[in-house]
Formats: sequence, structure tokens, C-alpha cells
Amino acid sequence: MAKKAIRNHLTFRPHFKTHQSAEIGEWFREAGVNAITVSSVSMAHYFADHGWKDITIAFPCNILEISQINELASRIRLNLLVESTEVASFLANNIHSETGFFVKIDTGYHRTGIAPKDIPLLNSVLDAAETNKKLVFKGFLTHTGQTYQAGSLDEIRSLAIRAMETMSGLKEIFNPRFPGLTLSIGDTPSCSLLDEFPGIDEIRPGNFIFYDLMQYSIGSCTLDDIAVAIACPVVAVHPERNEAVIYGGAAHLSKESLMHEGKFVFGLAVKYDRNVWNCNIPFGFVTSLSQEHGIIRINKDVKLQSGELIAILPVHSCLAVHELCMNKVVIEER
Amino acid sequence: MAKKAIRNHLTFRPHFKTHQSAEIGEWFREAGVNAITVSSVSMAHYFADHGWKDITIAFPCNILEISQINELASRIRLNLLVESTEVASFLANNIHSETGFFVKIDTGYHRTGIAPKDIPLLNSVLDAAETNKKLVFKGFLTHTGQTYQAGSLDEIRSLAIRAMETMSGLKEIFNPRFPGLTLSIGDTPSCSLLDEFPGIDEIRPGNFIFYDLMQYSIGSCTLDDIAVAIACPVVAVHPERNEAVIYGGAAHLSKESLMHEGKFVFGLAVKYDRNVWNCNIPFGFVTSLSQEHGIIRINKDVKLQSGELIAILPVHSCLAVHELCMNKVVIEER
Repeated sequence: MAKKAIRNHLTFRPHFKTHQSAEIGEWFREAGVNAITVSSVSMAHYFADHGWKDITIAFPCNILEISQINELASRIRLNLLVESTEVASFLANNIHSETGFFVKIDTGYHRTGIAPKDIPLLNSVLDAAETNKKLVFKGFLTHTGQTYQAGSLDEIRSLAIRAMETMSGLKEIFNPRFPGLTLSIGDTPSCSLLDEFPGIDEIRPGNFIFYDLMQYSIGSCTLDDIAVAIACPVVAVHPERNEAVIYGGAAHLSKESLMHEGKFVFGLAVKYDRNVWNCNIPFGFVTSLSQEHGIIRINKDVKLQSGELIAILPVHSCLAVHELCMNKVVIEER
Repeated sequence: MAKKAIRNHLTFRPHFKTHQSAEIGEWFREAGVNAITVSSVSMAHYFADHGWKDITIAFPCNILEISQINELASRIRLNLLVESTEVASFLANNIHSETGFFVKIDTGYHRTGIAPKDIPLLNSVLDAAETNKKLVFKGFLTHTGQTYQAGSLDEIRSLAIRAMETMSGLKEIFNPRFPGLTLSIGDTPSCSLLDEFPGIDEIRPGNFIFYDLMQYSIGSCTLDDIAVAIACPVVAVHPERNEAVIYGGAAHLSKESLMHEGKFVFGLAVKYDRNVWNCNIPFGFVTSLSQEHGIIRINKDVKLQSGELIAILPVHSCLAVHELCMNKVVIEER
């Protein structure tokens, strides 16, 4: 991903919410990365405390955290996300140090952001911000999350291209007033599948550091690209219904699910031996989760026993790793 | 619940996985509770360190944690859960101090446990355990989790009564060999809705300390009985599609969902003002969650604004509170 960014003259600002780990952050530093994305003020604090000096919080600014934001902005290059005139005005009135901001654009995901056609609202936000010279407009940012719903690789590519065209259109309109503004995009499916990013200045993928079953199912990666698994002990076996129970539940894997052959699944169990998992020896899907229990529907001819460790490939690595971080589970390098 | 247990001459051994809090544990102590249930060895350690001396780990014994189990059993009255001959043999060969165990019975939930008809397997487990006098059989334990799928209050009651009859049948068979064995049941719907527990010795409900939307939807509680809510800031408002975005995602609420009018919902947003939430002023359901974002579909005529705190009643309080504990969010008493 770092090489792809260099080849396209893009700033590579990877999203660190996927791993939330200072140690894994160092792998990025070795690849030349010095600007990052996070999804909360507390995550920004954590990485600032680990030497990261250029951080975008890619989450709509929570004005209740203004004192923590001011503290951060006093010691690093901080960028916030703004999508309303009210928040822009609040920041203009309340920031103490130079603080950058991106305006969030909704290029079709419809979770957050301003509709790109709403030029009056965009101008209103930028006018409100301009009343404080310390509040510096950096550019437009979008998350093309609609690629997760795409039915094919071609559809992912065309959704991403349409979003990039939309963003470029905004740059044309606003560049005279804000020369050199940045266009930032970043979802793992687009960034994995595209080779060129016409008109774009910055990419912010995060999930690709681990990938997961969801990315595999939409075609962003191979099964063997998945770079995180959770080692779980088998605690009960029920051969009469082809099931095994693992100590690994919603508290460890998260309840993120995926449709597979008409049913929700929560992970894929594979062989695990001496700290290595093997995707070529699948045991079956996790078909149900409670707080601590996971139920595996065991494939034919698989024999498991209590006390055996098996590996679970997660549906959504960001959430599973969040659970692991929170549970202070030891994460070992493969 | 404590009074109901006293009235029925039951041991009340509440499940502490719901709150995972030493402080909330003290409320139980004030109600006369001195025996508790947890769902992991680490949770047992936490509560043992906070003065609890009689703990059942109601999760199939993970033999990989034998050293932690031995450490615990050396200082408190510890009960484990066993459901296979292999694990019973392992424990008989590896425990150092007196350790109690319950045999898990599957009374219809089909998650874990031995089928009550499988008397040969039950005898095999008990025979394997009996080779070590320090491994003490305490009785049979079941979790009637099928009540969560019941379509009516009558169905919950009849599922619970059938499970209690099954358990009583086992007591009749095994009492001659193990006089005074304990029958332990415990799911919040049954314990909330039943007034009598014929033949049963112990109840282990946990969720009732907070209840949640799931319990409300199945009829275990009223909306006003729900005793936990997560205060979340509104960070964006999209009146054009009746949506608001909160800083409150899967990382805070968990991805547990509930079907409501044909759609999955992840929580109910209500009015929050000066540390009090008000179920009589609902704002709308949480209809989508990502890692940090929650999307509220706002009811007609509700006006929200960025920076406002609203309260989210969780679908599943055990998982939401787990997230809050893990995130070290401040939990304030109402």
C-alpha cells in the first residue's frame, strides 16, 4: 500500500483504528509513513504519546472533547472533521492553537458528510471557520464505505471512480478560494483494488493491515492475505450435531457477522499449530456467539478435542482486534 | 430477585458477568449474597481479589487454564463446569486443592451440556471424577437459554417448567449415589417471570441487574426497569433523512441486535438530561453501527443538535457493559 501511494504521488495516511497498537505503528514508520488517521480523540492521544506528530481524527468532531482537542493541537499537527456550520463556528470560537480541519463529504455511503451538491452549506461551513485564522481548512475528505455493499469487483471500482470524480469536481470549485486543498479518500476495498487514483491527494485505508473474512468475501484480498487470527481453546465437542464450543465469544471476536450460504457466520475456524495458522485446513464456520462462547459448525471428518487451540479468522478485524486490545490479550507476531 | 430466592429457599448465586464490577458486587452483598457466578477464570480472579469466596465459573472448563484454576481453588470455594469424561479425567489428574464441579446439562438450548437422557455419559463423567476425592461433584447445572427464543410469556414459563422437571428427574436418579446434590438453573427470563421453582436448589440470573431491550422485548421487564444506559454525544444531524450520528458504535454498545418491525436495531435513543435518562421521551432506534459511529433514525418532530448528550438503552446490557468496562468508561450511578 505504501508503494502504491508513492507510485501515485499520494500522501499515505493509514487508519490506525484497525490495530490501535504503537508497536504495529512502528511497522508503518519503517515503510516511510509519518501521517496517520484515527477514529477518536483518545486514540489520537495514544498515538501522539507514541511519537506520531500528524494525525487526522476521521470522525465528526465531538465538541464535548474541546479541551482534549486543544491539548492535542498544542503539541501535534491535528486535523479534525467538520460537517456543519454549528461545529465550524464552535471550533472557530474555542480552539487555542493552529488546528486543521477537513470537511466531510458524502459521496454515496450516507453515513456522515455533506452532500457534494450542497455548495451553499459547504460555503457556510468554510465561512464560519474562516473567522479564526488558526482554524485551517485542509480539504475535503470522504469514506467510500458503499464499496462494502458492492456486488462485484467492477462495481467497487466504478463506485470508487465515481467518488473520486465527485471529489475532483469539488476541488475545481473551491481551489480558487483555497489553492492546494487536499482531497482525501480511503476505504480498504478501493485502495486494494485500484491502481490509480486520479485527482486524489491522500489515501487512508486501515483494514488492509490485517484484512479479514469480510474483505475476502468482497474480493479485496485472498484468504491467505488475512494477517490476524484469534487462537481459541476448544472447551466442548458435540459430534452428534457437528458442533464444537470454543472459549471465544462476542467479548473476543465482536458480533460482526457475514452472510454465508444464507446464514450469518462470525468467523472461520482453521488449524492452528505452534503459533501458525493454516487456511488450507479449515474446520468450519463460527455460527453463533454469546458473551464468552463461540459455536463452530464442524466440517465433515474434522475431529476436535477439548483443550485444543484452534485459530479463528475474524469477520471484521478492526472490531476483533479492538476486543483483543481491550481484553489485553497477548498479540503475537506470526 | 434476592427476596424471591429467600421465599423459595433457593441459593441465590447471581451471574456477575453482566456488570463485571466489584462496586456493583457490593450491592449484592448488601442484599445477603455471598455466592456468585462468573463466566471466565479471569473474572473469577477479579472477584476473588475483591473478597468473594464462593464462585462458580459457569463456562465449560478450559483445561489450558489449569494453573490459574489451581491457584484460585487454593484460596476460595471454586466450582467448575464439566461436560465430558476427558475433562473430568484431566481435572482428576491435575487439581491440587479441593475443587467443586457441576455437570452441565442441556435442557434444550443446545449450546453446551450433556443430554439428560445420556445416563451412561453422565456416569462416565462422574466415575472419572471420583478417582480424585478432592474433585467434588456438586450437582447438575443448566442454562435454559431457549427462553430467549420464546414467542410468549406462557412459552417461557412452560420451557422453564419442562427444564426444571428434567433436572428433578436427574436428581431422582443420582441422589442415591450423591445425596444432597444441587440443581442449579438460571436465565433472567425464567427467574423474572416464575414465582416458584419446584425441585430447584439454586438460581443464577445475571442480566436482571440491568435488564435491556432484549429482555423488554421478550417480556421479562418493563422499559422503566432497564437500569443502564450509555450517554452518547450527537456528532452530526441529517434532518433530510431523519438521521443523527452519535459517538457510540460497536466499540461501545456491541453489535448485538434485535429485530424491530422487520429491521435490526442496536439500541433505543432517549432523552438524557443532568445524569437522568427518560424512557418516556424516545428519540428513535439505533439502526446501524460501525466501530465508533451509531446512526439513529430520528422519530418525527425530534430535534437534536451536535454536542447534545442522549442516552442509549442497549439491546444486550451484558455486552454493552463489557464494552464500557473494557473502554474504562466512567459508569455513574443513576
